[in-house]
Amino acid sequence: MALTLYDLAGADADRRFSPYCWRIRLAIAHKELPVETIPWRFTDKEVIAFSGQDRVPVLVDAGKALAGSWTIANYLEQNYPNGRSLLGGPVGAALTRFVESWSDTILLPSLLPLILVDVFEHLHEKDRVYFRSSRERRLGMTLEAACADRDKKVFGFRQSLEPLRATLKMQSFLGGTTPNYADYIVFGGFMWSRSTSPFELLEKDDPVALWRDRLLDRFEVARMAPGYDT
Amino acid sequence: MALTLYDLAGADADRRFSPYCWRIRLAIAHKELPVETIPWRFTDKEVIAFSGQDRVPVLVDAGKALAGSWTIANYLEQNYPNGRSLLGGPVGAALTRFVESWSDTILLPSLLPLILVDVFEHLHEKDRVYFRSSRERRLGMTLEAACADRDKKVFGFRQSLEPLRATLKMQSFLGGTTPNYADYIVFGGFMWSRSTSPFELLEKDDPVALWRDRLLDRFEVARMAPGYDT
Repeated sequence: MALTLYDLAGADADRRFSPYCWRIRLAIAHKELPVETIPWRFTDKEVIAFSGQDRVPVLVDAGKALAGSWTIANYLEQNYPNGRSLLGGPVGAALTRFVESWSDTILLPSLLPLILVDVFEHLHEKDRVYFRSSRERRLGMTLEAACADRDKKVFGFRQSLEPLRATLKMQSFLGGTTPNYADYIVFGGFMWSRSTSPFELLEKDDPVALWRDRLLDRFEVARMAPGYDT
Repeated sequence: MALTLYDLAGADADRRFSPYCWRIRLAIAHKELPVETIPWRFTDKEVIAFSGQDRVPVLVDAGKALAGSWTIANYLEQNYPNGRSLLGGPVGAALTRFVESWSDTILLPSLLPLILVDVFEHLHEKDRVYFRSSRERRLGMTLEAACADRDKKVFGFRQSLEPLRATLKMQSFLGGTTPNYADYIVFGGFMWSRSTSPFELLEKDDPVALWRDRLLDRFEVARMAPGYDT
């Protein structure tokens, strides 16, 4: 029986742009599991109410509902032990938490003011009022003000990637010679951008850009998804 | 036969302050191995010339010389496999590289302008001219100018710890329920500060301060070393 994933979508139902959902899309692809994805919008709160909370990703497997990317990744690891590990055992999982924390506190907040206006452009009509008002309240400014001067901000963004870049100068993936969930956590941020924004985040020869390309080459689900090839 | 570690020391031969040497001091303690440490100063280049390079840590084991903290940690893991693992296997080692990269590109450069004048105060007389001239050339300013306004800079430093802090809100150590080399990498930065500077880096209830205390409680070699209990 295939897995079912509720996956954030834009006006175009095939345009999937949640960085957290992309972590799970790739985790499922890593485990080579079949999955049916259901396009979900921010205002479809009642559609996932069965999961006991109101955000995606939500995974349903044999009638069991799981919410939250970390919970889902651990569920997949434990329940589908065949094939390559996602987390690398208890120590790998603990260290992956640091990658997740870096991603959530540095990478995604640094990406936000570079792409937020483009995310908005791709939203389903019914999500627009909710998205603008909730995000502008949180930011204390308009989406457009938050994204002002992105041609300058991008230099600070590239600088913030230095720990990732330094690692990728030493090895092909965060997981080592092959990618694992740590890679998918970070890559999810870049899929958030790729699926919504034509803005060029990285210089072509940046080791981070070359790593992103290696992951796109490995995962057709990411390479073929609607987005911008920047 | 005990290991021999060449370890950076100050005017007081017992004051050991290299963040890279501390990584190895704790890695050796983790493996519960006997070690003789030899106090070494920056200008003692010829003393470690046998290692083929001019920086510490240098470890000598049964006539074999190893240099560089990452190389030494891997050597200890491979040659002393008994007891708890330092790196958590190939995947753990790969993920530890990200912690190392974060430490080397974010943590240590953020610590530098908070403690550099205090490091200088503790140097052996024979190291002072070398240290000041080499550091000031690299920084493009005097040590004193680099450390100006540290009462203000400390807020940015604490902010830069957010990925570490977020992780330590979820688990006791970077390595999970018990510490491993990833913890020692980061803790080395805090030992650099502790051994040289009375400047208070962290608020008492910061999860990072509580983690630092847990490591000091575990490793007498760190708790009892000459330093400032800030």
